Amino acid sequence: MFTDHYELTMLQAALHSGAAHRRSVFEAFARRLPDGRRYGVVGGTGRLLEGLEHFRFGPDELNFLANNNVVNDETLAWLSDFKFSGDVYGYAEGELYFPNSPILTIESTFAEACILETYVLSVLNHDSAIASAASRMIGAAGARPCIEMGSRRTQEESAVAASRAAVIAGFHSTSNLECGLRYGVLTQGTAAHSFTLLHDSEEAAFRAQIGSMGAGTTLLVDTYDVEAAVRKAVAIAGPALGGVRLDSGDLLAQARDVRALLDSLGNTSTRITVTSDLDEFAIAALAAAPVDSYGVGTSLVTGSGAPTASMVYKLVSREGDDGEFVSVAKAAKNKASVGGRKYAMRRLNGSGIATAEVVGIGHEPASDNNDRPLLAKFMTGGVLAAGWTGAEGVVRATARHAASMAEMPGAARRLQRGDAVIPTEYEQATTPRN
Amino acid sequence: MFTDHYELTMLQAALHSGAAHRRSVFEAFARRLPDGRRYGVVGGTGRLLEGLEHFRFGPDELNFLANNNVVNDETLAWLSDFKFSGDVYGYAEGELYFPNSPILTIESTFAEACILETYVLSVLNHDSAIASAASRMIGAAGARPCIEMGSRRTQEESAVAASRAAVIAGFHSTSNLECGLRYGVLTQGTAAHSFTLLHDSEEAAFRAQIGSMGAGTTLLVDTYDVEAAVRKAVAIAGPALGGVRLDSGDLLAQARDVRALLDSLGNTSTRITVTSDLDEFAIAALAAAPVDSYGVGTSLVTGSGAPTASMVYKLVSREGDDGEFVSVAKAAKNKASVGGRKYAMRRLNGSGIATAEVVGIGHEPASDNNDRPLLAKFMTGGVLAAGWTGAEGVVRATARHAASMAEMPGAARRLQRGDAVIPTEYEQATTPRN
Repeated sequence: MFTDHYELTMLQAALHSGAAHRRSVFEAFARRLPDGRRYGVVGGTGRLLEGLEHFRFGPDELNFLANNNVVNDETLAWLSDFKFSGDVYGYAEGELYFPNSPILTIESTFAEACILETYVLSVLNHDSAIASAASRMIGAAGARPCIEMGSRRTQEESAVAASRAAVIAGFHSTSNLECGLRYGVLTQGTAAHSFTLLHDSEEAAFRAQIGSMGAGTTLLVDTYDVEAAVRKAVAIAGPALGGVRLDSGDLLAQARDVRALLDSLGNTSTRITVTSDLDEFAIAALAAAPVDSYGVGTSLVTGSGAPTASMVYKLVSREGDDGEFVSVAKAAKNKASVGGRKYAMRRLNGSGIATAEVVGIGHEPASDNNDRPLLAKFMTGGVLAAGWTGAEGVVRATARHAASMAEMPGAARRLQRGDAVIPTEYEQATTPRN
Repeated sequence: MFTDHYELTMLQAALHSGAAHRRSVFEAFARRLPDGRRYGVVGGTGRLLEGLEHFRFGPDELNFLANNNVVNDETLAWLSDFKFSGDVYGYAEGELYFPNSPILTIESTFAEACILETYVLSVLNHDSAIASAASRMIGAAGARPCIEMGSRRTQEESAVAASRAAVIAGFHSTSNLECGLRYGVLTQGTAAHSFTLLHDSEEAAFRAQIGSMGAGTTLLVDTYDVEAAVRKAVAIAGPALGGVRLDSGDLLAQARDVRALLDSLGNTSTRITVTSDLDEFAIAALAAAPVDSYGVGTSLVTGSGAPTASMVYKLVSREGDDGEFVSVAKAAKNKASVGGRKYAMRRLNGSGIATAEVVGIGHEPASDNNDRPLLAKFMTGGVLAAGWTGAEGVVRATARHAASMAEMPGAARRLQRGDAVIPTEYEQATTPRN
């Protein structure tokens, strides 16, 4: 019952007026990107479809709604039979989006689409915020792998969703085991400071870890004195020592010192991982440091300053009494929307580089051979198409993200604040209905 | 399995060295408050305890760990028998906290406490961030009720936790039905713009809503023209119209115009709710406007600029080979901690106003009659004490928060950036062990 109270009161009132059964088109989109961002990344579509298949109101929910007089008996009866039976299409997960991109479209009766609002937005807003931040980090990291380790900085279920979104945007692996279990993504991790402190000496802790995990493990070397710890680690593990992790201090200077020390001890293939409050800017600043991988936590799971994607879910078209669809949009100041069902494609130049997001209102925009259509059909009459959910969906979304990034002009990867890297163009402007 | 990979590799290595069975004391605390905040609010304790009772590794989890070679057979066997059997104490939910307040303490074997790290921090970091932001909004709103309506701006399970945390900090109600179901909190909501757009005219939509919900409902009046909508609403519902909601535009000016219009039409008891991207500063700015209640969304569920509470979970004390406890702490630069088991109380002056957070290391701090001890015992030998969880826990935490706020000096309610409103004093300084 991830539903806001007002969705059910609207449902009740619309059942009362009869308008609940009008065919309706709802659209999820973002009016803007977070300040200064060049693009957004669609995240959560797979999770959304997984949940939509099982979106029901069971006895506990119906009893709660009845006992608290949230809705009347007619509405309770409708909810008890509810199973989504509409059509869903939109941008593939992992795809890039821009202001007003029609990211998700739901066509069904008003009643069915209305009660999905909060769930649709919760999933898309959260997961897209994380995927969008993650994608910038991947750009800053270049060829070096990023490991997601932010679970502790966000709610426990958000952590699983955030891990999943990070992997879609290009993260190599995650510390979150539940995400590994649910989505088959690679998990990784070795030890915390508490493990060192548990033992009578740092040496005893290193011996325990290597004895149990093998010399290829990564040792955390900044509990006491970094240089002494690296020397102990090499003395115990030898040249096969897999890696060392730095989690505090001046990472740039420390990485250089530790690299030089490791090399001088003959451990030229021991890797250095850094993990202290990194964001895309800190990662970029470490580009010249001898670092092999980045562990990213807080800033990833909080969207690096943009913890939500500000997507909205609006009725854009619905049947009238004559059965014809009518475009609709709110006309009030500062939040006006563009009504009508949308179609979208990415305009590419002869070199395959994106130049615009083209949105057609009420029809597919005209296209030449280079243009790439952006809408996929996820559900038809409530039946899910194959390949978008579960582990398969994550693999597909990861590939989609990489391919879409490869199409972008180089400016997309700039961390400096700027406008959307390509403009959104409406092929046919419409006037909001009044 | 809300657990990071490294917790299980540490467990394996500690089982290998034998240190896994050492009695250990872990502490959750925040080194600092978010920039400029005067206090933090402990949120999530009840949820944490609910989860801790059911924290187990089932067949699916164990198979995943085995198939992916996360841990060895010895560790799998230990996990399959795991049920938390330690002691948990800490600050009551709803209590205020300051830098280094010992918010939660877990005493058990290293093995048991180690694998709870991510779960403990996920819950406390998220829920405390929301409760802390919510408390400032309540302060800004004064006697006017605040309604939580941010579910769509955060992950769907986070939304339930955020609603719960908001209510603890003093929110009147929430739009989140699942939170109502799980925790018995009041839910509220009426209609969105889509409901108006669904109908052939605004008048038809208002008639439908009033026909179904009664004249006491709240009508959304900014889909087209606010003044015209208010006139229609009053014409249809009469003087009994419950309320109108404004969701866009210049809320200050609009609230004045709408209030004057309602009064001129005789609707002096029709309430005005405003809901457009409010945070504590916007709420404060509306103090002089004729607004009756605030609906708060995005900024609430994203912690109003501080989406996580930056709490950490550290080993502070553990048994040595002789069975005696030894205080431990990381010594490395810029993240040093204070080792040792902590006790805490709030020092109050003769007027019952808080003057300091007093933390004793290894012993209860000396107290006079005015001082209030802060640590409660939540679990003993894995058995939960009564009254901290479920709906009962939310009621108790709400009362705790209100009482603790009443003790604070007036500066706590200031929105301007500043230091913690009371200092944290260690009764006995210790030197980090090296």
